[in-house]
Amino acid sequence: MTLTQETPARPRQAAGANTATLIVQGPDRTGLVAAVASTLALHGANILALDQYSDDPYGGAFFQRTVFGLENLPAALPRLREDLDTQVAAASGLSFTLRDTSVPKRVAIFASKSDHCLLDLLWRHRRGELPVTVAMVVSNHPDVAEEVRGFGIPFFHVPSAGPDKSAAEAQHLRLVRDNVDFIVLARYMQILSADFIEQAGVPIINIHHSFLPAFIGAGPYAKAKERGVKLVGATAHYVTADLDEGPIIEQDVVRVTHAQSTADLMRRGADVERAVLSRAVLWHAEDRVIRHGNHTIVFT
Amino acid sequence: MTLTQETPARPRQAAGANTATLIVQGPDRTGLVAAVASTLALHGANILALDQYSDDPYGGAFFQRTVFGLENLPAALPRLREDLDTQVAAASGLSFTLRDTSVPKRVAIFASKSDHCLLDLLWRHRRGELPVTVAMVVSNHPDVAEEVRGFGIPFFHVPSAGPDKSAAEAQHLRLVRDNVDFIVLARYMQILSADFIEQAGVPIINIHHSFLPAFIGAGPYAKAKERGVKLVGATAHYVTADLDEGPIIEQDVVRVTHAQSTADLMRRGADVERAVLSRAVLWHAEDRVIRHGNHTIVFT
Amino acid sequence: MTLTQETPARPRQAAGANTATLIVQGPDRTGLVAAVASTLALHGANILALDQYSDDPYGGAFFQRTVFGLENLPAALPRLREDLDTQVAAASGLSFTLRDTSVPKRVAIFASKSDHCLLDLLWRHRRGELPVTVAMVVSNHPDVAEEVRGFGIPFFHVPSAGPDKSAAEAQHLRLVRDNVDFIVLARYMQILSADFIEQAGVPIINIHHSFLPAFIGAGPYAKAKERGVKLVGATAHYVTADLDEGPIIEQDVVRVTHAQSTADLMRRGADVERAVLSRAVLWHAEDRVIRHGNHTIVFT
Amino acid sequence: MTLTQETPARPRQAAGANTATLIVQGPDRTGLVAAVASTLALHGANILALDQYSDDPYGGAFFQRTVFGLENLPAALPRLREDLDTQVAAASGLSFTLRDTSVPKRVAIFASKSDHCLLDLLWRHRRGELPVTVAMVVSNHPDVAEEVRGFGIPFFHVPSAGPDKSAAEAQHLRLVRDNVDFIVLARYMQILSADFIEQAGVPIINIHHSFLPAFIGAGPYAKAKERGVKLVGATAHYVTADLDEGPIIEQDVVRVTHAQSTADLMRRGADVERAVLSRAVLWHAEDRVIRHGNHTIVFT
Repeated sequence: MTLTQETPARPRQAAGANTATLIVQGPDRTGLVAAVASTLALHGANILALDQYSDDPYGGAFFQRTVFGLENLPAALPRLREDLDTQVAAASGLSFTLRDTSVPKRVAIFASKSDHCLLDLLWRHRRGELPVTVAMVVSNHPDVAEEVRGFGIPFFHVPSAGPDKSAAEAQHLRLVRDNVDFIVLARYMQILSADFIEQAGVPIINIHHSFLPAFIGAGPYAKAKERGVKLVGATAHYVTADLDEGPIIEQDVVRVTHAQSTADLMRRGADVERAVLSRAVLWHAEDRVIRHGNHTIVFT
Repeated sequence: MTLTQETPARPRQAAGANTATLIVQGPDRTGLVAAVASTLALHGANILALDQYSDDPYGGAFFQRTVFGLENLPAALPRLREDLDTQVAAASGLSFTLRDTSVPKRVAIFASKSDHCLLDLLWRHRRGELPVTVAMVVSNHPDVAEEVRGFGIPFFHVPSAGPDKSAAEAQHLRLVRDNVDFIVLARYMQILSADFIEQAGVPIINIHHSFLPAFIGAGPYAKAKERGVKLVGATAHYVTADLDEGPIIEQDVVRVTHAQSTADLMRRGADVERAVLSRAVLWHAEDRVIRHGNHTIVFT
Repeated sequence: MTLTQETPARPRQAAGANTATLIVQGPDRTGLVAAVASTLALHGANILALDQYSDDPYGGAFFQRTVFGLENLPAALPRLREDLDTQVAAASGLSFTLRDTSVPKRVAIFASKSDHCLLDLLWRHRRGELPVTVAMVVSNHPDVAEEVRGFGIPFFHVPSAGPDKSAAEAQHLRLVRDNVDFIVLARYMQILSADFIEQAGVPIINIHHSFLPAFIGAGPYAKAKERGVKLVGATAHYVTADLDEGPIIEQDVVRVTHAQSTADLMRRGADVERAVLSRAVLWHAEDRVIRHGNHTIVFT
Repeated sequence: MTLTQETPARPRQAAGANTATLIVQGPDRTGLVAAVASTLALHGANILALDQYSDDPYGGAFFQRTVFGLENLPAALPRLREDLDTQVAAASGLSFTLRDTSVPKRVAIFASKSDHCLLDLLWRHRRGELPVTVAMVVSNHPDVAEEVRGFGIPFFHVPSAGPDKSAAEAQHLRLVRDNVDFIVLARYMQILSADFIEQAGVPIINIHHSFLPAFIGAGPYAKAKERGVKLVGATAHYVTADLDEGPIIEQDVVRVTHAQSTADLMRRGADVERAVLSRAVLWHAEDRVIRHGNHTIVFT
């Protein structure tokens, strides 16, 4: 059995002090790379890595990720941001985000009973493979409380029974608002309302299984087994109001054979889910993923 | 980009003289392996490789593939077949196929305008990687006639315009009946009628693209691009009356990125199609695939 | 980056009660599969999975792994063993091992300061992915004591400074003798004497890095970086008196690029080491690995 | 069996008219990206893709590959080259190469009896997957002459028996000088003299097998089989005076098992050789490979 990509080993670039990541996107036109690079050079920034992509050379969209070193970064960032704003963004209709890479993004992980994705994230985090601060774990089940707290991470049990999720979601909002930079649904088995998604105001990453061909409805693994699929897969994506239809960040599959039972398929599926989710979270944490329409640019 | 499986390099076991392959399947019960092996031993057969699988240890189905050497095989086969029939099959409700592996299966390849799958099969065949006899290529377009004949293989142009396929199918039947042991649809873009499938009376292997998630209807690659898929795939399966829903033989995917256009995705898809189809044809040719219900047992 | 094989998710066959694994090996001749299967059938055993391989159809060696179900297995095993001995082994010069798969093998893990392989094994074990009993962890450094004991596993610190290892090895022997069925060197950085290997009397599995091309001597990762390798790998093997030259159980590689530092290469190497070692330990625990001369037959 | 990378499907970017590729390398310092991008912008060039890498942010080496569109490219290139020379290269000690990507590089392929790598390159070329002009095939054996000429490519037989290669090499020089931009040794089994390498004056790409661990001397596949390797591999590299020790461009492996004979291993090795060589040739043709010391930067 083969994953087409290995699970992340650790952040590619050490988030050393005095290093920042700049994401620029907007309508493409001649001179954008030069404009950004010149502004950085004027501030004494040394570009360490740069990825650039235009989806259409003529009239398309422009995407750039730049990692640079700059002495006294915390002091220097505000003025650099201002210059980028006035000299690049204003003139060209570009938008940008600029982030000190030594400050890890804060994440809330939402989970339910199934813990494989949750624990994989917590383990990788403890091993230094995920440059994030896990601010909290939130679950509609109390089962994993002790294990989570054993990692030194706050755990909040927010029950969510019944069709009316508004009370639970209100509590979720109180927990995450201003406290986290993104949310990861690590096999969180509750549907989020469009209202919550909007009010949370931060990116939300979800993971779901996926098959070739697709098996819709209940018991997808049993249907996949019945049909004799040779691959089971998983898809990590940003959550939008369209359930499971948001921009895809990462996907992968593993091979299965006739010798594996439906239960085996579910376990293989769980393996690929945690691998795919880990990569998606790492890449998001490192500002490697740019959303554009209903898809993503991923500079890995 | 990565295929999770490499395309076949050549037949695993050289189809030497005096070598046969026996496939046995049926209801599982204690002693089946012994019964088959004893019958083979009595005839002096030396087992070279044996794969066995039961889908449920208690009351399930039994599948076995055995490759054995036997002196003077052509002379010895009829009596061995008779003994297997009376001493194994009759008693246990098993069915079996027994084949001299030095006699390659005969195949007809059906193609349309798109030639990547067709040529890949012909090239592999010429390099000795596919132990089959390519009896003919049949196409509803004349475009590839010269190239096919350059490989020394008969080419038949059978036009198939209009909704009524009966004339074309009648011609197809005249061509393939008694002449081939299986048919491969190498991107043959015509739907076969249930009547043709039945009358052809031989296994038919088809290849189609597949996606995570699935994109139904026209322009699947454009939809996949729009959604930003990270994998494109292909599925090889036996053709049944249910279009594209027959037992899956093999599947694979390749990674794609945001940097690839819809046309690139189609090319990557073509690559994975020919790799997957080649493996399916090789495994079928080597009697590695056993159909059971709507799925397959594949002893690779 | 890609591992060509995924790390093991869990034992392939649940080691249910009343299930046994039989390994048979020896000089090949006609009728061996039948002889073994008939003996099993006479005892009422139901074969669940069977893998057989002959390295040369004429005068080669025969290898077979059979998993079977048998009611009241613990009571029935002694007589089955006796029959296999008298009716199969004695007559044919075959040797066999027969094991109740519900009784996990006992393992001692030897480690040094580097803990990635050790922890990976302990984690997988806790998740039920490795069907072994971890009897103890032995290290020449006390660093990981607390973490190991946190998994509920005994930890023994056996210092091993200086060139004379005899005192340490004597202590090792007292610990492992009769207590374990195999030993895993999880990046244990001490050389074992030929005397210890012999007296321990159990298989010992080691893991080491490996490169294409090989870089011998000190600092292999720095040399590999200097040469710009695109793959770093690891090899798991049985330990023999020839350091790092014993029969290979499993190997794998991961892709690296110019963008990765020597330290990155070491981390990627550590990733592949733990993945390869985990697979080797799983396969050994499941009796999937048969030693033959200086190589192995692995029925995965 | 798995290749960790798929063989190339086709050039990533269509070599459209009015598109150029600029490679810049040299000592890193602040402002280089800006300097290059500004010069391009002044000439009206629109950057389509940019990859940049510094091997050490402080005092390291700088590497950049830029693909850009520019109207009337053939007319505009000389002045752009001049400006890059005076305004970027002269000031900063950088060197650069600038190439109209619509003009394919010309290649001579050297081969011997073994034709798998040669034919793979010719087939890919015919399918439009390799953006090169195959100027000639040169072989020390006449065997493949007809097949090569069937592709419409000139074939030259230059015998090379005996220890003195000077006559053969003199003929080689007459053939390739000024006629090709690089040479590919597609399993060419003759050692090139240091003198030839220098006088040829163009990059030379070679392919050789490689193993984990390495098996030196004659019969490497037999030794690898004896040791039971689980992976066989290949390495493509630039040729230097140090035989087989030049900068690595690409490597890959495929899995093998105990069930494969030495001859099988050689065939699998041939498969991975042609896949690895194809990728190396494609990347070189697209200016994706930058040599630096004894290693390469590969922007894939």
